[in-house]
Amino acid sequence: MPTYKAPLRDMKFLLNEVFDYPGHYQGLASGANATPDIVDAILTECGRFCEEVLSPLYQSGDEEGCRLDNGEVTTPAGYKAAYEQYAQGGWQGLSAPEEFGGQGLPASMGLLKQEMMGTANWSFSMYPGLSLGAMNTIFLHGSDDQKDTYLTPLTEGRWGGTMCLTEPQCGTDLGQVKTRAEPQADGSYRLTGTKIFISSGDHDLTENIVHIVLARLPDAPKGTRGISLFIVPKFLPGADGGIGERNGVSCGSLEKKMGIKASATCVMNFDDATGFLIGPENQGLECMFTFMNTARIGTAIQGVGPAELSYQWALDYARERRSMRALSGKKEPDQVADALIHHADVRRMLLTQKAIAEGGRAMLYYAARLADHMVEGYTEGDDKKAARYDDKLGFLTPILKGFLTEMGCEAANLGMQVFGGHGYIREHGMEQIVRDTRIATLYEGTTGIQALDLLGRKVLLMTQGGAVREFTLNVANFARKQLTDKRLRPMALELLKLTGQWNWLTVRIMLAARKDRDLVSSAAHDFLMYSGYVTMAYIWLRQSAVAVDKLDNGGADAEAFYQAKLATAEFYYERLLPRAQSHATSMLSPTASVMQLADEHMAFTG
Amino acid sequence: MPTYKAPLRDMKFLLNEVFDYPGHYQGLASGANATPDIVDAILTECGRFCEEVLSPLYQSGDEEGCRLDNGEVTTPAGYKAAYEQYAQGGWQGLSAPEEFGGQGLPASMGLLKQEMMGTANWSFSMYPGLSLGAMNTIFLHGSDDQKDTYLTPLTEGRWGGTMCLTEPQCGTDLGQVKTRAEPQADGSYRLTGTKIFISSGDHDLTENIVHIVLARLPDAPKGTRGISLFIVPKFLPGADGGIGERNGVSCGSLEKKMGIKASATCVMNFDDATGFLIGPENQGLECMFTFMNTARIGTAIQGVGPAELSYQWALDYARERRSMRALSGKKEPDQVADALIHHADVRRMLLTQKAIAEGGRAMLYYAARLADHMVEGYTEGDDKKAARYDDKLGFLTPILKGFLTEMGCEAANLGMQVFGGHGYIREHGMEQIVRDTRIATLYEGTTGIQALDLLGRKVLLMTQGGAVREFTLNVANFARKQLTDKRLRPMALELLKLTGQWNWLTVRIMLAARKDRDLVSSAAHDFLMYSGYVTMAYIWLRQSAVAVDKLDNGGADAEAFYQAKLATAEFYYERLLPRAQSHATSMLSPTASVMQLADEHMAFTG
Repeated sequence: MPTYKAPLRDMKFLLNEVFDYPGHYQGLASGANATPDIVDAILTECGRFCEEVLSPLYQSGDEEGCRLDNGEVTTPAGYKAAYEQYAQGGWQGLSAPEEFGGQGLPASMGLLKQEMMGTANWSFSMYPGLSLGAMNTIFLHGSDDQKDTYLTPLTEGRWGGTMCLTEPQCGTDLGQVKTRAEPQADGSYRLTGTKIFISSGDHDLTENIVHIVLARLPDAPKGTRGISLFIVPKFLPGADGGIGERNGVSCGSLEKKMGIKASATCVMNFDDATGFLIGPENQGLECMFTFMNTARIGTAIQGVGPAELSYQWALDYARERRSMRALSGKKEPDQVADALIHHADVRRMLLTQKAIAEGGRAMLYYAARLADHMVEGYTEGDDKKAARYDDKLGFLTPILKGFLTEMGCEAANLGMQVFGGHGYIREHGMEQIVRDTRIATLYEGTTGIQALDLLGRKVLLMTQGGAVREFTLNVANFARKQLTDKRLRPMALELLKLTGQWNWLTVRIMLAARKDRDLVSSAAHDFLMYSGYVTMAYIWLRQSAVAVDKLDNGGADAEAFYQAKLATAEFYYERLLPRAQSHATSMLSPTASVMQLADEHMAFTG
Repeated sequence: MPTYKAPLRDMKFLLNEVFDYPGHYQGLASGANATPDIVDAILTECGRFCEEVLSPLYQSGDEEGCRLDNGEVTTPAGYKAAYEQYAQGGWQGLSAPEEFGGQGLPASMGLLKQEMMGTANWSFSMYPGLSLGAMNTIFLHGSDDQKDTYLTPLTEGRWGGTMCLTEPQCGTDLGQVKTRAEPQADGSYRLTGTKIFISSGDHDLTENIVHIVLARLPDAPKGTRGISLFIVPKFLPGADGGIGERNGVSCGSLEKKMGIKASATCVMNFDDATGFLIGPENQGLECMFTFMNTARIGTAIQGVGPAELSYQWALDYARERRSMRALSGKKEPDQVADALIHHADVRRMLLTQKAIAEGGRAMLYYAARLADHMVEGYTEGDDKKAARYDDKLGFLTPILKGFLTEMGCEAANLGMQVFGGHGYIREHGMEQIVRDTRIATLYEGTTGIQALDLLGRKVLLMTQGGAVREFTLNVANFARKQLTDKRLRPMALELLKLTGQWNWLTVRIMLAARKDRDLVSSAAHDFLMYSGYVTMAYIWLRQSAVAVDKLDNGGADAEAFYQAKLATAEFYYERLLPRAQSHATSMLSPTASVMQLADEHMAFTG
């Protein structure tokens, strides 16, 4: 059975050599304890847990799936024990405030943990992941009493959490939410309604589950401005931090899904369930979305993790499996055939995976620094600072979530392709990675929604192109500095050209969209993918610049690592980045190409 | 539960209006009975069978899968009854010679049938599909005695067939085949070995199964020149065309797969099984591959069918599901939100599916005319004619198989994407289409193998670029004729430019590959995809030219159909064809970009 190896060398390269996390942490209040030694120890320990405990449950969890019996969900064999180890290790509170039992480390440490856990076993990682969403919401919007009641057991991992948004009639369009909340004399509410697609909605990992629920008050305005947010625990809080009475919320059924089968996706029924208003009335959507950027970046990890996992397994297979001879002559003359890795086309697939996994990881770590500052702003009550970094992050979020999850699916499919027909067979795990990853472009806002968020909101509406101008200014400044080195010059030149083109495309669309609003939607997908390819190109140049510096000044023992970085960057620029140009062409094509065909003439039968 | 609607209007457009099948059939001996009325009646009847009998078994077959009990495979509920209807309807013999009980119609009629069956229920269609492979092999290479024994029950569908090539250690690289065949005194052989991935290896649909098996004689040379072909029936033929003694071949286990779960994928064990040599000793691979072009085009259908099915279901959903408002203003003001189909980005996805489904279908029908001539050559014993058309087909085969199956996966994934999170849930069937389709880029030669076959063999080795020159000459001549019409001119100009570029790219690679053989492999994938996009552009211009002609001269009642054709063609040229340019750039990038990184430095741990 294939297993996961934590890519600690690459992670440390990004943290210590490319993005100067040691310096970054020194500047954060929460970073005081995140010394290089501590970070190193945490990464090593987390890696071990993921390799030894979570990875072995990856395939068995998929085979077995979750079960619903008498209204209670049971997770696959081994999940409960693994979760206990996780909770007892204090992992859930890694980046949580110390006053509620957390370790108070920077938010980015949580992302590193999530990346490793999600790569080893995405389904497992969703249980603590959803809890984190609930924790963030209560931390930011809860009353002191609510924080006292819920945050400690959630931080300790004794309780789990969920986010209950989607209903049968609406997912993206939350203005259609129908779940009702009736105020009670004691200040609580009674919630009635049905929520679907609730990850971790019920399970046997924790003694209680805290649902964060969108619902409507009786007199609420229609649409998105009439939605409030509620805490609805599975068991009402009891004395001494324990649990009390069972609440009127239950799992009605489990969805049968393509993948992430070890993650319980529940239909949740609220029948006069007791709930507690969190945040102001009718401002539930705003509250829910405060941490949307971090939640979406959390999902962007699902583009990177599977690319890494699928690459690791495909690389092993390509080294072992022998078929045919390399076109440039026998590479293993003593063997019956050459290993797959000697075939240029197989290398093309492997290097695509590698470029996506390592490039995507670097994009995440680049963004995570901003997330640390944003969270610090919130923690310090400095709303301006929080908003400033939230805006910076807000530009990157749809690129990371939209682009990286699409690329993750490509990488997973390529890993399967390296295995040939064996990739289609369950025992190798490759097809499971494809199935598990496929959800990533759908939940937390589909790729189409990310694209509209990027182009329609972040670029055009909110900044009139300013977001692109600001970002590309930094990119271009960096690129210009690399022009003097002949190894970096071709990449830097290409990147400079692209920063100009990106602004030009933005202006072209902005002008055209004034006359034709549909253009924003018709161009959005190509704009998103273009933005992703250029951002990844920037991040590969960042890595390459460090590699060149180390090759010139570092010890010979590490030379191979940096050469590999340069080679992967060159591959990315020569083989993947050219796709940006086809997106540039497509996004400028007239709206008519998608709008002119009448709905009723989209298909003819008979 | 969603169902399939046979796209007869589009099929007839291609057959009667674009590719003049009525005229084509008049020129074929086997076409005498394929009058327009007969063809029409067959399409209608086949469509009905697929809609009413096969489509309802699509999802249930996936849920249930196949079972292996006591060495016997049972297909899902309803499959046996459906197969009986299929056999009794005479469908298996549609294009088979009349002397063995077939209807003697042209080979292309079989392809039309396969397309509809494969779209409604790909797994089901594999059982008769594999039988057809066995029939073709025996028809072409069997002795008169072998034909007499096997062809009639196979044609009647009473017996099934398989192709047993792959072994655990080899799939693509069949020179590594180990299964042994020991000659016996009576002229038969005893076969011993294990074959894997044998589709339809065992099942309960037919009273007997005829395995066509690759194996080695005791004194055979090593590698591909030492492989012979054998007929190994599950039951030895008995008296009066019935079955006799059970043979030593059995299903050892069923593979657990990502999809096509209703198709039994078997490990087949041969234990001193009685077999009969077919074709000359040690020329088994050549014999096996005689019909490889048609088998691979049969698999190319799996790119088109799922695109069609996924499009049909996604279109229905996009018309019904309401979410948000169109950017250009409310389209359904009385509703809570606008239907998905009003959003430009959703239309982009739907039109991509449509362009792939209809463009892919047209590519298949274009190639099927060549297949008819090739088969006629074989039937008439005119080897030269057969070889001439086999060569023409041989250039198109890897393009169709490689490009269309990749595009089919994209289309299936887009259909799922239109459903948002609901696409990930099994009940809607969208994720099943993705899982089922995914095998298409793997079996019958992976996309990488198709790419090497196209660039390495068909274009460079066999014709020194002549295959591209010859094909593009026709394309360019056609495009030039369309320059005078202002609706066609932009497409025709673009296509003309591409025919020039295709030749230029071919020459560039040919020259560079003389010094660097790895370039053929490193460029092959991009060359294949480029070739696919240009070929599909040609085929969309062909359809557009007919549409323009009909719009100018046809009745008003059909106007919408032809307008839709033109709109879809324009979408293809503006939105999908630009991708050809990124492939053109990538294929010319230096081999070093994939070869320079040492194998041992592809990953670093710790």
